[in-house]
Amino acid sequence: MKKVVLAFSGGLDTSFCVKYLSEDKGYEVHTLTVNTGGFDAKEIGEIEARAKALGVASHQTVDETKNYYDTVIRFLIYGNVLKNNTYPLSVSAERMSQALAVANYAKKIKADAVAHGSTGAGNDQVRFDMVLNILVPGVEIITPIRELKLSREAEIDYLKSKGVQFNFEKALYSINKGLWGTSVGGKETLKSLGMLPEEAWPTPISKTESEQISLTFKQGELIKVNGQPFAHPSEAIQHLQNIAAPFGIGRDIHVGDTIIGIKGRVGFEAAAPMLIIKAHHALEKHVLTKWQLNWKEQLAQFYGTWLHEGQYLDPVMRDIEAYLQSTQQQVTGDVHIQLLPYRFVILGIESPFDLMSSKFGKYGEMNLGWTGDDVKGFTKIFGNQTAIYHQVKEAVKD
Amino acid sequence: MKKVVLAFSGGLDTSFCVKYLSEDKGYEVHTLTVNTGGFDAKEIGEIEARAKALGVASHQTVDETKNYYDTVIRFLIYGNVLKNNTYPLSVSAERMSQALAVANYAKKIKADAVAHGSTGAGNDQVRFDMVLNILVPGVEIITPIRELKLSREAEIDYLKSKGVQFNFEKALYSINKGLWGTSVGGKETLKSLGMLPEEAWPTPISKTESEQISLTFKQGELIKVNGQPFAHPSEAIQHLQNIAAPFGIGRDIHVGDTIIGIKGRVGFEAAAPMLIIKAHHALEKHVLTKWQLNWKEQLAQFYGTWLHEGQYLDPVMRDIEAYLQSTQQQVTGDVHIQLLPYRFVILGIESPFDLMSSKFGKYGEMNLGWTGDDVKGFTKIFGNQTAIYHQVKEAVKD
Amino acid sequence: MKKVVLAFSGGLDTSFCVKYLSEDKGYEVHTLTVNTGGFDAKEIGEIEARAKALGVASHQTVDETKNYYDTVIRFLIYGNVLKNNTYPLSVSAERMSQALAVANYAKKIKADAVAHGSTGAGNDQVRFDMVLNILVPGVEIITPIRELKLSREAEIDYLKSKGVQFNFEKALYSINKGLWGTSVGGKETLKSLGMLPEEAWPTPISKTESEQISLTFKQGELIKVNGQPFAHPSEAIQHLQNIAAPFGIGRDIHVGDTIIGIKGRVGFEAAAPMLIIKAHHALEKHVLTKWQLNWKEQLAQFYGTWLHEGQYLDPVMRDIEAYLQSTQQQVTGDVHIQLLPYRFVILGIESPFDLMSSKFGKYGEMNLGWTGDDVKGFTKIFGNQTAIYHQVKEAVKD
Amino acid sequence: MKKVVLAFSGGLDTSFCVKYLSEDKGYEVHTLTVNTGGFDAKEIGEIEARAKALGVASHQTVDETKNYYDTVIRFLIYGNVLKNNTYPLSVSAERMSQALAVANYAKKIKADAVAHGSTGAGNDQVRFDMVLNILVPGVEIITPIRELKLSREAEIDYLKSKGVQFNFEKALYSINKGLWGTSVGGKETLKSLGMLPEEAWPTPISKTESEQISLTFKQGELIKVNGQPFAHPSEAIQHLQNIAAPFGIGRDIHVGDTIIGIKGRVGFEAAAPMLIIKAHHALEKHVLTKWQLNWKEQLAQFYGTWLHEGQYLDPVMRDIEAYLQSTQQQVTGDVHIQLLPYRFVILGIESPFDLMSSKFGKYGEMNLGWTGDDVKGFTKIFGNQTAIYHQVKEAVKD
Repeated sequence: MKKVVLAFSGGLDTSFCVKYLSEDKGYEVHTLTVNTGGFDAKEIGEIEARAKALGVASHQTVDETKNYYDTVIRFLIYGNVLKNNTYPLSVSAERMSQALAVANYAKKIKADAVAHGSTGAGNDQVRFDMVLNILVPGVEIITPIRELKLSREAEIDYLKSKGVQFNFEKALYSINKGLWGTSVGGKETLKSLGMLPEEAWPTPISKTESEQISLTFKQGELIKVNGQPFAHPSEAIQHLQNIAAPFGIGRDIHVGDTIIGIKGRVGFEAAAPMLIIKAHHALEKHVLTKWQLNWKEQLAQFYGTWLHEGQYLDPVMRDIEAYLQSTQQQVTGDVHIQLLPYRFVILGIESPFDLMSSKFGKYGEMNLGWTGDDVKGFTKIFGNQTAIYHQVKEAVKD
Repeated sequence: MKKVVLAFSGGLDTSFCVKYLSEDKGYEVHTLTVNTGGFDAKEIGEIEARAKALGVASHQTVDETKNYYDTVIRFLIYGNVLKNNTYPLSVSAERMSQALAVANYAKKIKADAVAHGSTGAGNDQVRFDMVLNILVPGVEIITPIRELKLSREAEIDYLKSKGVQFNFEKALYSINKGLWGTSVGGKETLKSLGMLPEEAWPTPISKTESEQISLTFKQGELIKVNGQPFAHPSEAIQHLQNIAAPFGIGRDIHVGDTIIGIKGRVGFEAAAPMLIIKAHHALEKHVLTKWQLNWKEQLAQFYGTWLHEGQYLDPVMRDIEAYLQSTQQQVTGDVHIQLLPYRFVILGIESPFDLMSSKFGKYGEMNLGWTGDDVKGFTKIFGNQTAIYHQVKEAVKD
Repeated sequence: MKKVVLAFSGGLDTSFCVKYLSEDKGYEVHTLTVNTGGFDAKEIGEIEARAKALGVASHQTVDETKNYYDTVIRFLIYGNVLKNNTYPLSVSAERMSQALAVANYAKKIKADAVAHGSTGAGNDQVRFDMVLNILVPGVEIITPIRELKLSREAEIDYLKSKGVQFNFEKALYSINKGLWGTSVGGKETLKSLGMLPEEAWPTPISKTESEQISLTFKQGELIKVNGQPFAHPSEAIQHLQNIAAPFGIGRDIHVGDTIIGIKGRVGFEAAAPMLIIKAHHALEKHVLTKWQLNWKEQLAQFYGTWLHEGQYLDPVMRDIEAYLQSTQQQVTGDVHIQLLPYRFVILGIESPFDLMSSKFGKYGEMNLGWTGDDVKGFTKIFGNQTAIYHQVKEAVKD
Repeated sequence: MKKVVLAFSGGLDTSFCVKYLSEDKGYEVHTLTVNTGGFDAKEIGEIEARAKALGVASHQTVDETKNYYDTVIRFLIYGNVLKNNTYPLSVSAERMSQALAVANYAKKIKADAVAHGSTGAGNDQVRFDMVLNILVPGVEIITPIRELKLSREAEIDYLKSKGVQFNFEKALYSINKGLWGTSVGGKETLKSLGMLPEEAWPTPISKTESEQISLTFKQGELIKVNGQPFAHPSEAIQHLQNIAAPFGIGRDIHVGDTIIGIKGRVGFEAAAPMLIIKAHHALEKHVLTKWQLNWKEQLAQFYGTWLHEGQYLDPVMRDIEAYLQSTQQQVTGDVHIQLLPYRFVILGIESPFDLMSSKFGKYGEMNLGWTGDDVKGFTKIFGNQTAIYHQVKEAVKD
């Protein structure tokens, strides 16, 4: 009997896949649930219970949260990655991490096939197929939902016919939660105009009084929140999320290019990611040189796009990570932030590596180490080529 | 007697320059005030009165507001230019426009010299000197404030000794107002940590009730606000500013690299610029292709930096403007925005050129024009090189 | 009866397609031969004769040479485009031009289908399919060679069975000739090591005596060769090709990434393209500013790659063309070149827009318009941020 | 008595500086000669003899050849750096290495001042001043040649008056030799038109018979020439130089932007650098992915320009080095080259990491691992956005 690894979330689509693969297709189904920080222990237990109820050959949960941070999120922070200046890549990043875990599990248990519940309409199919094509090239990929294109009702009926009577109520808003943010899709995001209503957002507003916090970075990584250290940055992220999400911070709608060429719109709630990226960027503006910032931005924008498009395994990603890592050596210091309902204000930074140190001249106030004459000379030379250009042009006119 | 054109704002420094240039240096002083949208008629009258009271040989005011929009701001909007992702270049852009007007005036009246009130500590000296070196290369540049480095008190005493008794009260916050935003400097912005207090901001908060507005763009230019058309986009900008500034929208602090290599921090209030740039960008995300957006971002970031650094006259700027102009052909449509105290929400867009049109497939819902098999083939080929890379690497290991 | 437009070269593959489409598939076959400068009148006549002998419903030849130059080559020259610093995109550019002509012809005669002779292994299938998908989205695409994967012998046998007895001798080297160069493939280019032998190159060496020539550019376009003007730059290119190819100039092997992810190697002979690009670039180095050159290089490299990958119709290509066009305003002057066997030497340029004009300072000799003190001031400020960086770093160490 | 470190080459200018600094200015002069591969033992001995004859307080020679390779040239090879696609930065790179050695020596002997013989007309003054401003900020910089602007004759007369009668014959061509190439300046390079004559080139042509060589790279570094290993890549470079220079390979003229804004033209002879860069690049085209190559090119072009402009100490350079280093992990293999008079031909490469391996599909021949249908699907999706763009545009027209 052929072994298939099925990426399993416990929802309707992947529950359908279990039965379809085992009973219609004759596979030995091994379900794998990859936790990238979006499931708590209770949810993990429920998913496991469902897998068993569906009669899988085996079920496994892997907690990828720390590894996900170490291999992906860390670099998104180093790069201040916001796709189209807006979106922290919450789902894109997470899906890559899950696909990698699925491929590794398939290798480990020597599976003949891998199945995932992606439809034929979105980005996830590309991310899963891409990673599987690359890491387990001989292994068959099965995507029942993409092939069969069944309606919800048809899937439920099929499961009923197999004796499965789970409660699959259709939510008004589809939610995908992970360490780096939660995406929210609904009828408003299917059109170009319209904001998600209050009830669509996963975390209700429960804080209205302004709060001041400090984030401590060491070589680009968040190591403390309000002075409290954490064993791993992923825990600092989750702690910050609990502080800030009740303000409604980090809610927005992203419009962007899908891998398959159409434009898509998706809501997201990402309090901790937005705070961390903006705080980290503020710190960098003080400690990095102009050209470090410039190239970081270009490389990080590409890194984010290429990750979004499922290309995490292209070795250029390792090269860019080497660049980003190198830039973080002095990205150390505290960032102070005021949290307010729906928004936050970066109050400033403190760092031993601050290049704005008053020891070297305050902007607009005084200057040490150079004179007005130096600046005159600088300007003469800095504009020399353009001056020659205009003189040459004038000379031709005459 | 040698003629000098003095860029004149009516403040302490340029008032000092009038007397110093005419009485100590023996120049015939022709003052020029360049209005880039920051002065109203009353202020213009007051400046003129001061010039006359100081006994200038002639005083001239030029209204550059429309020209400033046409030659600079327009391209900042096309490019969604925010320096370091934050600052609309309010002062940088304006100063270039003023320097250009001063140079042209000096040419026109055949001046022997040009004077400006810049200190030796900031960006403005570079911008003025640069433009003057390039456009009027034979003309002497005089910068009394930079050379003499007098204290406020010394300047006031000097003016008193010449019989000038204007009221030069030192403001707690230095303000620079123009069409593209108002900068605010104060003791908080001289350090790396600290936010400007409520009273520092030029426009007090007077609106607290949410308001919904629409901005209409035609080929990248703002032509209507709430459906009302304007004779020139600069008027639409000023109208929008009046609507949005009382919400406290567009207040922030920018940290960045000065031209002279030190880091600087400056507050700004730029309600209309922030709304226009974010709205324009939202529209572009719907109507431009992925690579149009990508290259726009890189070119526009450079354009902004190079403008900031006084290099407006480098012909590469004209080339980038040609690129940006070309991208705007279909950037036409309405953007709907909700205004709230201190913030705003882009609700979405309507455009005949919207590439998210449901005629061509809704993200995550259905797809027309291609199949799941197409995506499978796409993914196979899209990841082909990386797959080969990993196979080759594995083969060497063995 | 359904109409199919077949892109027809008269070779074995497309001859097979005529019979297969008409007799096996029942289409009314309209052949189209697109001349992009590679066919002379005699060859055009022979192709037409073959089409008629095969019994096509109609045959049409379009001469795209000038249009190919105006819409594609012109921008490759403006951009000095050499893929991987080596290859002038001879085939890539030409194939796009042919695909566009085929799509337009299909539209014009209201064809139901378009057929091309591409295999499933190369770039051309992508270029043709891409343009057809975009420009004639409802029209069926038929690629018999890709689908059937027949051997040469099987195709010849099939044609014989239909009474066609053309002479289809297999050349040792496959040659593709056009206005912008000739590609050469053979057994040496299928491996990573090995140079094409002398007899593989289309133009035999017949000149061994050094010759000096001049190329005159006006706003980036080649308008004269040795002082002789041409009605259209495409004629200047062909004239230059006749002068230079007998030297063996412009022969090389390109290694690069195919659209489908594998690496490919191809020989080419492109005397005129290499001379024009190197001469044009030499002129630009004298007349453009540093940043014009810098951005040109980045944009042009992308332009070349995107053209190579069949994406000519992405509107970003029009935007980049606007940039490139803008840069060419002063790219006017003469370039002097020495031609020698297998190589050439750029001797220098003459241009009224030369920024190296001795009026503004000779490098290393003397300087006008600025002093050593100006350079000292410049250097102080130019290195200011890095100096602060190192001082801050030292201070932390202590 | 104040100590000055003088960068000393033994030529007229720096000999003048010794006497001027010691006798007119009263400094204790410590000469330093930095060998970056351009001086042999005999020349070093002669320079030392001159220093002593001039009566310096101390003279020191440091051999920076290996360190120069390790800290600079290595990255120029990784990045295939050719400024303006032509110049291997022979002088620019070397001057930085010398300036760094001078600064370190000044620190070591606790000098009060550093002197160098740069004029006020070129790039070298910026490179020296920059490094000194940054690394020894408190130390005075003295540039007698730049300040005094004496003629050759005046300098010789001055030296004679001090009893110095060295033979300072003026060469027709100024030569600067180092590990990474030799620059040649003369009357031809002061104008925009004209090639250096045969006698100007340092190495006369003595080989006319074609020779085939192999270069072996390991992780981007040249470790063997014709199978012969070397203790350090700098030795491999010198060995290759001896083989190839007698062919006249690597001679060219570079036109480019000086740091101070004017255009400059300089001849150079750089057989080994050109061979190594072209061979290394050929190998990379086979072993790196498309996007690795793309970003390498952009970063390396900036790296070269920034090095040229004296900005080696900007930390962004370390970040780019980290990127470049990361890309070299699989740049291992042999490159075969044919040497001919004045030119060379890359014959191909052999590498275990070759992505053109026939195991994964030969271009244009066959394909494994994917089908024509995969490519059809790929093309559909790859062109999807542009197809939508054109459909939307058409729809608006109607």
